[in-house]
Amino acid sequence: MNVSHRLTELRSFMEKNDIAVSIVMNPDNQFYLSGFKAILYSRPIVLSIMENKVDLVVPGLEEAHAKSEANADEIHVYYEHPEMSEQAANHTTLVKKILSGYSKDTRIGFDLAHAPAELVFEVEKLGYKAVDVGRKITEMRYIKDQDEIDLMIEAGQLVNLAVSKSLESCKPGVTELEIDAVGNTALFSKTASKHPNATLGFFVMSPSGEKRSIMPHVFSNTRKLNVGDVMIHSRQVAFNGYRAELERTVIIGKPTEQQIKAFKTAQNAQQAALEFIKPGVTAAQVDKVARDVIEKEGFGKYAIHRVGHGIGVSEHEEPYLRFDNDLVLEDGMAFSIEPGFYIPGLGGFRHSDTVILTPDGNKIITEYPRDLESLVFD
Amino acid sequence: MNVSHRLTELRSFMEKNDIAVSIVMNPDNQFYLSGFKAILYSRPIVLSIMENKVDLVVPGLEEAHAKSEANADEIHVYYEHPEMSEQAANHTTLVKKILSGYSKDTRIGFDLAHAPAELVFEVEKLGYKAVDVGRKITEMRYIKDQDEIDLMIEAGQLVNLAVSKSLESCKPGVTELEIDAVGNTALFSKTASKHPNATLGFFVMSPSGEKRSIMPHVFSNTRKLNVGDVMIHSRQVAFNGYRAELERTVIIGKPTEQQIKAFKTAQNAQQAALEFIKPGVTAAQVDKVARDVIEKEGFGKYAIHRVGHGIGVSEHEEPYLRFDNDLVLEDGMAFSIEPGFYIPGLGGFRHSDTVILTPDGNKIITEYPRDLESLVFD
Repeated sequence: MNVSHRLTELRSFMEKNDIAVSIVMNPDNQFYLSGFKAILYSRPIVLSIMENKVDLVVPGLEEAHAKSEANADEIHVYYEHPEMSEQAANHTTLVKKILSGYSKDTRIGFDLAHAPAELVFEVEKLGYKAVDVGRKITEMRYIKDQDEIDLMIEAGQLVNLAVSKSLESCKPGVTELEIDAVGNTALFSKTASKHPNATLGFFVMSPSGEKRSIMPHVFSNTRKLNVGDVMIHSRQVAFNGYRAELERTVIIGKPTEQQIKAFKTAQNAQQAALEFIKPGVTAAQVDKVARDVIEKEGFGKYAIHRVGHGIGVSEHEEPYLRFDNDLVLEDGMAFSIEPGFYIPGLGGFRHSDTVILTPDGNKIITEYPRDLESLVFD
Repeated sequence: MNVSHRLTELRSFMEKNDIAVSIVMNPDNQFYLSGFKAILYSRPIVLSIMENKVDLVVPGLEEAHAKSEANADEIHVYYEHPEMSEQAANHTTLVKKILSGYSKDTRIGFDLAHAPAELVFEVEKLGYKAVDVGRKITEMRYIKDQDEIDLMIEAGQLVNLAVSKSLESCKPGVTELEIDAVGNTALFSKTASKHPNATLGFFVMSPSGEKRSIMPHVFSNTRKLNVGDVMIHSRQVAFNGYRAELERTVIIGKPTEQQIKAFKTAQNAQQAALEFIKPGVTAAQVDKVARDVIEKEGFGKYAIHRVGHGIGVSEHEEPYLRFDNDLVLEDGMAFSIEPGFYIPGLGGFRHSDTVILTPDGNKIITEYPRDLESLVFD
């Protein structure tokens, strides 16, 4: 993916704000600006953007990977084998080396909402002044370019397939984890046959029953589905680093009156937001459109989260469709649309689809029926 | 899991170092000290440990989850629905509220290697002094208690099963992701039948071929196995939050002379370390024992990572078995043992097993044959 226009925009911001170097620590920001995504455990990776140069700091075991995938002018490596470690044995040494040409009081940018305080303190101890570039990078990521949109559309196709296969396997006695696994297997196999050498990321959870489905974010476990359960099947797929999200509420066995009312309210709230969201409206207005539907049915106090979030490189990214966000939406932004509410003693209700805003509306890139009849399994 | 002894130890450290409050931001540290593990996307969670109280800050959609699982005296919630947001709309407000009873210049502990600089700066702006408690928590986590060991042993059984099923599926034409999926399915199904209501975490990757297997950490992709490939199948399973790791190098089709030499060197290096590691030796000595075997065969310069890492709550955690770590190992520490080397044009070679140190040696909690004959597939 071409990242040069992104570097140009960041550098223009740096010049205006007298920032000599941007030290980018958030892995998703690093991927966005360099195309490089590592599996991060305990060894830090540092992306450093200067006026005329991009440096990447990696541990020895990422050297080959970085050289093959990163858009970087120079790759600095810290080592864990004694004969090489004299060059550098940790990332801090290399960050100091990169900064060594700059005089004291130079302003160094960090994505401060993510950068570990320890590293920022180290840099400040050298006499540099730490300032934020994270907000700027976050805002650059709001609007997707065509390369990004194309990957997200393909991610949408893959998440559609995985959700449909998982839901087909729903019946009493099957566990949450088994339901997840069915979709995963279909996803892996389809991606393998369709996209040689693609990278796939996936996340799935299926909290079920009145007690677990009211927790919007919990790992699937080995609980078995029972007749009468509500389950929220929630899935994201990342295709070569770009994501789509699809979630459906399902009922196991014949739904009760209360379940029917709640289900249809969630469906209608989502439908209202899907029809409303377009360039020119604000994030808060989208939240309100869905929230109004939920409140009219008396479920407002259970609607404990925003109606949706930006999506692309990160599972959740800004802009957030939140009651207090007055940002005016634009063509090319991408969102999950997922009003939800969670009623103790009854269960959780939420559908999610992913949309990309177009000049005169939006394109939904995920697809699975949303009506009750299609989402009752027994 | 009982966490009271952990809180006692941390509080004793805080008292000695005149730290009134510890603000813990690393999710694994939070789990270790509170038993609460959330799926983290964009909404921060803050664990705050005081002399006589533990407070947890969560977003509205984690309120029910936290109340059911966290060992905390008080749960503070920030909200995204307008009618509740007057109480708090973000985590920073609640951190400030927790700290409001403390006078300026109070020393506030953070796990600074993880805590975002932005939050630490906010706290310092109020006049407090940020100091590190992360090193102390890291060291507390070195030695596993019996509850932790029991979970890790079960994780070992599960990772054994998953690896054996994945490896059985290795043959030319199958993709890396499909190999991973076979083990996942077996893992989910076994866990479901054996452990109702268990939580499972898993990570797996299978970089294959001479180009990809030399990158120790890359996501599996849709590359198909070919005759002549080296593949490193690498897997971790977390059972109710505690982990075991098992990795095997495999050859597809008849191995070449070069592959045989490299494979046996990796196997022998691991065997040497497994036989050597016990209480009383240093981390660096374990690294050297394995490294010596690799160097004798002329592969030293390709041995680009430490011989192993601590394991338990985190995928990788301290202590690291690294050339420059003179820590003396103790009974109850747990490690991956995984000397590896990566030869451009030939491939990567690494087995990994998980051991827990015992008074007179170690117990290997993962199991799969390590010899070449058992690891050739066609």
